[in-house]
Amino acid sequence: MKLQFSNTIQQLKTSATREILKLTQGNDIISFAGGLPAEDFFPDHAMKEAFNKVFDQGKKSLQYGITEGHIPLRKQICQRMKKKGMVVNEDQIQITTGSQQAIDLITRIFINPGDTILVENPTYLAALQVFEGYGAKVVGVKSDDDGIHLNDLKEKITRHRPKFIYVTPTFANPTGRFWSNERKQGILNICKQHETIIIEDDPYGEIQFNETSGIPSIYSLNNESDEFNPVIYTSTFSKTVIPALRIGWVVGESSIIQQITKAKQAADLHSSMVDQQALYFLLRDFDLDQHILNVSHEYEQRKNLMTQLLLQYEIPAKWVDPQGGMFLWLTLNDSSIDATELLKKAVKEGVAFVPGSVFYTGETLKNTMRLNFTYTAKEQMEVGIKRLQRVFTTVPQN
Amino acid sequence: MKLQFSNTIQQLKTSATREILKLTQGNDIISFAGGLPAEDFFPDHAMKEAFNKVFDQGKKSLQYGITEGHIPLRKQICQRMKKKGMVVNEDQIQITTGSQQAIDLITRIFINPGDTILVENPTYLAALQVFEGYGAKVVGVKSDDDGIHLNDLKEKITRHRPKFIYVTPTFANPTGRFWSNERKQGILNICKQHETIIIEDDPYGEIQFNETSGIPSIYSLNNESDEFNPVIYTSTFSKTVIPALRIGWVVGESSIIQQITKAKQAADLHSSMVDQQALYFLLRDFDLDQHILNVSHEYEQRKNLMTQLLLQYEIPAKWVDPQGGMFLWLTLNDSSIDATELLKKAVKEGVAFVPGSVFYTGETLKNTMRLNFTYTAKEQMEVGIKRLQRVFTTVPQN
Repeated sequence: MKLQFSNTIQQLKTSATREILKLTQGNDIISFAGGLPAEDFFPDHAMKEAFNKVFDQGKKSLQYGITEGHIPLRKQICQRMKKKGMVVNEDQIQITTGSQQAIDLITRIFINPGDTILVENPTYLAALQVFEGYGAKVVGVKSDDDGIHLNDLKEKITRHRPKFIYVTPTFANPTGRFWSNERKQGILNICKQHETIIIEDDPYGEIQFNETSGIPSIYSLNNESDEFNPVIYTSTFSKTVIPALRIGWVVGESSIIQQITKAKQAADLHSSMVDQQALYFLLRDFDLDQHILNVSHEYEQRKNLMTQLLLQYEIPAKWVDPQGGMFLWLTLNDSSIDATELLKKAVKEGVAFVPGSVFYTGETLKNTMRLNFTYTAKEQMEVGIKRLQRVFTTVPQN
Repeated sequence: MKLQFSNTIQQLKTSATREILKLTQGNDIISFAGGLPAEDFFPDHAMKEAFNKVFDQGKKSLQYGITEGHIPLRKQICQRMKKKGMVVNEDQIQITTGSQQAIDLITRIFINPGDTILVENPTYLAALQVFEGYGAKVVGVKSDDDGIHLNDLKEKITRHRPKFIYVTPTFANPTGRFWSNERKQGILNICKQHETIIIEDDPYGEIQFNETSGIPSIYSLNNESDEFNPVIYTSTFSKTVIPALRIGWVVGESSIIQQITKAKQAADLHSSMVDQQALYFLLRDFDLDQHILNVSHEYEQRKNLMTQLLLQYEIPAKWVDPQGGMFLWLTLNDSSIDATELLKKAVKEGVAFVPGSVFYTGETLKNTMRLNFTYTAKEQMEVGIKRLQRVFTTVPQN
């Protein structure tokens, strides 16, 4: 029987990262490829207690729930949003199955095939996949270590009239970049002027190495007296609590959230109410902020160790020291090296990373790679970087 | 700011059932409207134990999982599928966030706007919503108490060349219908001959009142020696374990499941691994089959009580006694009565149901209504049917 699949699924590429992860499974490979948090710090005891509290409430709590998500959890999220300068009520929050679902639902409510989406370049691979799956034309905006170039943004908004722009201003994946406040204010002003929606994806914003308080989101920079905030903000507990729960959320104007809720209802009715209630109890009874501080401190040490080893083993590359998040973005000194080719050798040597090219749309810098520094334990990191050094010795340097 | 939403979200209607349920919240209303299982029988103690076992495995079990779903859970589902005559391996199973997500993902991988989907008429409302949201042309096939009419099916496949046909052959929502084996074999033969995919939605199949063994699915009727099975089967634990978990699954040919997995990866990476692992432990250590027997027995008693009360209070309607599932489908004797109008009066009297018209595509029988018999406790049921009687006394009978 001949199967006729939709354009959507034919446009949807499988994740290169995922394919690489498959290569590394079951082998003695040290992987800097995945975007995984360190398991050692998962608050398993607190989570177990939180789940017990769900069941101790009685059977009623195990029934179907509302699509928008568990109200007490949304209220807790409102409290947490305040730290980012965001004053929102629970009607402005939709709970999602991770922020990946947020990206999917937002795209679903805005994009018709052929519509344009602007993105930072490079950007989160799985967002690019979603956008292309919906038949969007994805256009990259130039960016540097301070964020996107505002002139290029203006020019591309005027030329392409995009439905929205997708950005990760705080410790981006893959670059680890942390936008300046000037660029954050700039994108907001330009997008308001041109009536363009901003999707602010913030899965890593709480993993900070230097800041002692919340970093303002683009969302928070909107003047409260203004009628409409063009920012849709999304984040997740996958990096700060545990990934297995898949609980994320979206914040935005009620008129937008209502449409997301409608899309969510058709997509899966609602996310697990057992998990949502457990997370509510965790946020109520566990000091998540202190936990995040502890984890961030450990991640900073791992990042410091990795950069020190990269220097020590003379990996021929440059990088900007990240101020938070989970990734180190390397640009190889030799611009003729294709990191995708390098990866094949690396896997043979027993080390993995993600070639930078997969994160680009349009013009690609092939001599880039993303290293994750959070997952690998310190004692393993040196073994991994040594293996990486061996990979470079096999490459003729220009 | 003027928002420009996608065609998809504009085509997507919110659920009439949901709007009615909102009306009934917080009031002293007896609702036969929802499709909720009875809370009294939720296996909360067994579930609590199962979740504890997840956390007792250690922190590694709280990391990201694979998109396809927890392998031991999929193996357990294979065992359960055998009872329906389905011999499948775990590579033919994708775990979903309820069977609602299965319907969404299947539609996503097959449907381009303008493609045709055939459905039983009437059929599951939220499936119609998904299909219309993807811009499909939905065409109803005539059906009666034994299933769809095979001649009409043949004619409509030839005329419309649909991407697939969506059916609920076992204790359908809304009609409670239980197809004859002849119709099941018939749809399979016709669809194989015309290379048409069948979506077999089976959330209620295990809630049986009379059968002592598994009822064969359409999927199971395919000859094992045949190269390709055109049936994609989906079910859920929402009705048999607890709804709050939102764990469902899809079974199909690997070539189809792989596409569903790709779509699922973009949609939300994976469903909660905590819940999937807990469900695995529940299936391993708890006698779910005995539990389902007990619950089904109670549901049968509630159904018997409801039909007895409908007769006792002389509700002017006809129905076919359901052999399982959760719903009673009433056709009012007076064909001029519009059940949607009746509902407004009913809510004032303190009782709710779903007007049948929302389940139809194309030609609609307005003098129909769906009553759920599983959710309302026996002692409340008489109060509800009495109120329904009062509603009818206000309507002039032809």
